[in-house]
Amino acid sequence: MNYCGKTINSRSRFEDVQKRKCHREPGHEGKCEEFPFLKHLAKTNKRIADKIKRDSTMTTGAAWKSEDAGPNRILRWVMLLSDEELLKYGLDMNALKPQVIAKIREKASDYDSCIQVAIKLTWLVYQMNGAPECPENIKEYLEEHCGVMNNSTVCSICLEEIDFDLFHSAQRGKANLETCHLNPRIHDHENVGFGHRECNIAQGNKTLDEFYEWIRGILHRADNNL
Amino acid sequence: MNYCGKTINSRSRFEDVQKRKCHREPGHEGKCEEFPFLKHLAKTNKRIADKIKRDSTMTTGAAWKSEDAGPNRILRWVMLLSDEELLKYGLDMNALKPQVIAKIREKASDYDSCIQVAIKLTWLVYQMNGAPECPENIKEYLEEHCGVMNNSTVCSICLEEIDFDLFHSAQRGKANLETCHLNPRIHDHENVGFGHRECNIAQGNKTLDEFYEWIRGILHRADNNL
Repeated sequence: MNYCGKTINSRSRFEDVQKRKCHREPGHEGKCEEFPFLKHLAKTNKRIADKIKRDSTMTTGAAWKSEDAGPNRILRWVMLLSDEELLKYGLDMNALKPQVIAKIREKASDYDSCIQVAIKLTWLVYQMNGAPECPENIKEYLEEHCGVMNNSTVCSICLEEIDFDLFHSAQRGKANLETCHLNPRIHDHENVGFGHRECNIAQGNKTLDEFYEWIRGILHRADNNL
Repeated sequence: MNYCGKTINSRSRFEDVQKRKCHREPGHEGKCEEFPFLKHLAKTNKRIADKIKRDSTMTTGAAWKSEDAGPNRILRWVMLLSDEELLKYGLDMNALKPQVIAKIREKASDYDSCIQVAIKLTWLVYQMNGAPECPENIKEYLEEHCGVMNNSTVCSICLEEIDFDLFHSAQRGKANLETCHLNPRIHDHENVGFGHRECNIAQGNKTLDEFYEWIRGILHRADNNL
């Protein structure tokens, strides 16, 4: 699909690493927008739209050891830079433990892939049971990218249908619905989906195929023992 | 089994909640001991012996919100006391969030059950592949409680054999071997075992039976979808 592609100015200190772009159609009227497909959801359910933007573009979880080294989450495409380049931005990878580096580096992804992930996640949200109705122009946009919207969205891992309401419930301060990856080390639109928190935790660092084979082995042993 | 049962003085502020007792045989010679079955392991592998004592007698994980309310871990039998009684010890349950109270309360257990858990865990450790050889007198003691020691210890959850060496490895600062519960809400010798960290995490708050049924459902859906 073609986009307008004009630069959208952001005040990020990483702006010269990657310019944010407009993803409206070429020759559109009015303002450029990076996430035009989230415009409706941002009005009806701002927290969910923000979550999609955050999960698609930012790494998760790896806290920096040195206080001035950077934020807890960081832009995924910034993590494509070399250690030397990161140092110019005040991010000292050497200040991090090896396992933290591995964790944060494997979440790296280029800008275009991140946008496609955001589109895929939005497409999935509108197909959840009880989701707000998708405005026609956004539906067209999403379907052009990801295909016809007619199925109920299922958890990527346990494959049970997901209720939109699950976004609003939380246990012990943690959302019950998470962005998850069929292969935790690849962040692109084919590889992402939504999953129950408990499913995502159970999958852990395994690929979905590895996870299925793992639990198949467990059941095989359990059934022959009991 | 009968024990000497004499009181062992501890300097715990919870001593009047529950006196620590001697678990050597009645009429034994020499010093009273609370964990005589751990005497050998405490010499060869102090960290593992300490882990068994800790996991069998202390709750895990629930941090107290108020700084003067108490420690991060607390004796399991102290958590059997009522809110009113705990307040006398400076532990204000009302300062905790409801989900933390639930989590910590479900880890409560009486003193005798905790000791039986410690015996069971010790019995399991000596049956792991590569474990130190169990001295004859301790073997007799353990077998009198838990049965003949002849099998290799398996992970309670995935049922694969556990290597003793796994106690020494750790990932991201977390031990790879954890004390786990067939039913996470019951702390007694029938209900405890050792499990891989990833297995324990995957089981989560489910009973082992619930976990097996859950993953059986996942595979059923995955196999019919793929």
